[in-house]
Amino acid sequence: MDSSVPLIPQLAAHIVAAGGKRLRPVLTLASAKLCGYSGARHINLAACVEFIHTATLLHDDVVDESELRRGQASANAVFGNQASVLVGDFLFARAFQLMVADGSLKVLDILSRAAATIAEGEVLQLATQNDLSTSDAKYLEVIQGKTAALFAAACQVGAVVADRPEAEERALAEYGMALGIAFQLVDDALDYAADQATLGKTVGDDFREGKITLPVLVAYHAGDLEECEFWRRTIEEGAQADDDLETALRLIARHGAIQATLDRATAFAADAKRALATFPPGGLRESLMAVADYTVNRVR
Amino acid sequence: MDSSVPLIPQLAAHIVAAGGKRLRPVLTLASAKLCGYSGARHINLAACVEFIHTATLLHDDVVDESELRRGQASANAVFGNQASVLVGDFLFARAFQLMVADGSLKVLDILSRAAATIAEGEVLQLATQNDLSTSDAKYLEVIQGKTAALFAAACQVGAVVADRPEAEERALAEYGMALGIAFQLVDDALDYAADQATLGKTVGDDFREGKITLPVLVAYHAGDLEECEFWRRTIEEGAQADDDLETALRLIARHGAIQATLDRATAFAADAKRALATFPPGGLRESLMAVADYTVNRVR
Repeated sequence: MDSSVPLIPQLAAHIVAAGGKRLRPVLTLASAKLCGYSGARHINLAACVEFIHTATLLHDDVVDESELRRGQASANAVFGNQASVLVGDFLFARAFQLMVADGSLKVLDILSRAAATIAEGEVLQLATQNDLSTSDAKYLEVIQGKTAALFAAACQVGAVVADRPEAEERALAEYGMALGIAFQLVDDALDYAADQATLGKTVGDDFREGKITLPVLVAYHAGDLEECEFWRRTIEEGAQADDDLETALRLIARHGAIQATLDRATAFAADAKRALATFPPGGLRESLMAVADYTVNRVR
Repeated sequence: MDSSVPLIPQLAAHIVAAGGKRLRPVLTLASAKLCGYSGARHINLAACVEFIHTATLLHDDVVDESELRRGQASANAVFGNQASVLVGDFLFARAFQLMVADGSLKVLDILSRAAATIAEGEVLQLATQNDLSTSDAKYLEVIQGKTAALFAAACQVGAVVADRPEAEERALAEYGMALGIAFQLVDDALDYAADQATLGKTVGDDFREGKITLPVLVAYHAGDLEECEFWRRTIEEGAQADDDLETALRLIARHGAIQATLDRATAFAADAKRALATFPPGGLRESLMAVADYTVNRVR
């Protein structure tokens, strides 16, 4: 994060200090270890993964006009949108510099592809915003791109540094992809179900932005005429009154939409665990399986 | 620019259709030819250079809230800030994918470093905004980062694909760096001197944003007490009235600040031409020298 331009380490330190789960870099470290890797390359590559993630967070918060991130004021709220966009660009470029220093074209291939896929997923999300005719499949395509692609890449890179056979690379990429989908499904459920103080961001953000997520799609498709009219006004037209979030939460509860979303997440987490079957039982494999369970049971 | 997400090629096509000089990719093509290269790699790498440039334009226009780019409505004005940020990210990632497909770690090193330097230059510009105590040296550091670094990299990549000795690489990088500084100096002069219809963007944008550029620094340092007060109010405090741009133009003219800026540009263009002395005289060398002359004589 270092730079001769002080605002860069200042802003980057702000986002690092706010904490976060560091799930993606941990996946790179654990995947490398699972593949029996004993060198040190996985550490810098895990940092690349986290830099790419951080760059997308900085840009997301600008795009979403978020004011909270991980329970703290977001970087754009403190330093402004301009600095957030530019420091995001810097971290993204630095990630590629770190990968170049590592020297593996295969790693560069995996992470540059993931970076393009993330951007595609984010643009697709923007295109589906406010659009209740979005299919479940399209929604899954969005979260696969914006979230799961980097989980998959983070895991795959671990197998690549260990120089393991293609089958293990593929197994770890599949694990990461299913895990990432489960993770985002839970994120989308928490946005309507979490305790604000625990969540670290504002409950109802997705609702206010008219984001199309599974809890809304489930409630919308199960709703009666009056309910559909409510969703059309609040999500499609964005005409929201003060008590509309409360109504949305009630309708989502009435149709069990949170549980339905968590059930989908549980199924993807099970897929993730199954993908690890190719590895021998033992410490790290069980830890990665526990990560899949944690992903669906977390409250923030 | 292709993607299964339609908004991406749509927005990218908008910015491509608006034209532009395509100076940076031309530098890669011409540098490769100057070095006697006869393959086809320089074409994709020139595209990488233009993608990186386009990504920074998209982000710049969001950061600057610009409404015009190359005489057309800017992408953010047509598609919104969100799409501009994300499609910029996409093009940036695509540039790295193209470089990975090309397979040269050296090229990846040069262009990832340039990308980081551009972001640093942009952040430094943001940090100097509204600050009249910015030194000429700091201003030069800004434009070297935000503009000249990519010119230098674009030229250097041409020598790298031709597999030429370090001395030729360095000569082309020096040419690009000096050319890029000259180019930005002229840009900053045109922002106060150009004919609006010819310029393709709004005259006075830099003034309204409180950007610290050489024309302002020259006029400010040569100004009397009343003039300094004018610059402090308009640039530092950003308290601008309708006729302030006109006053700024008059003060800049009074102190010959446009000419002083263009003189600096001419000196850098001469440096650029001198850097080419290591190459044998002839067609492409003279063309690149002509580019240096064009850079200081252009009206847009």
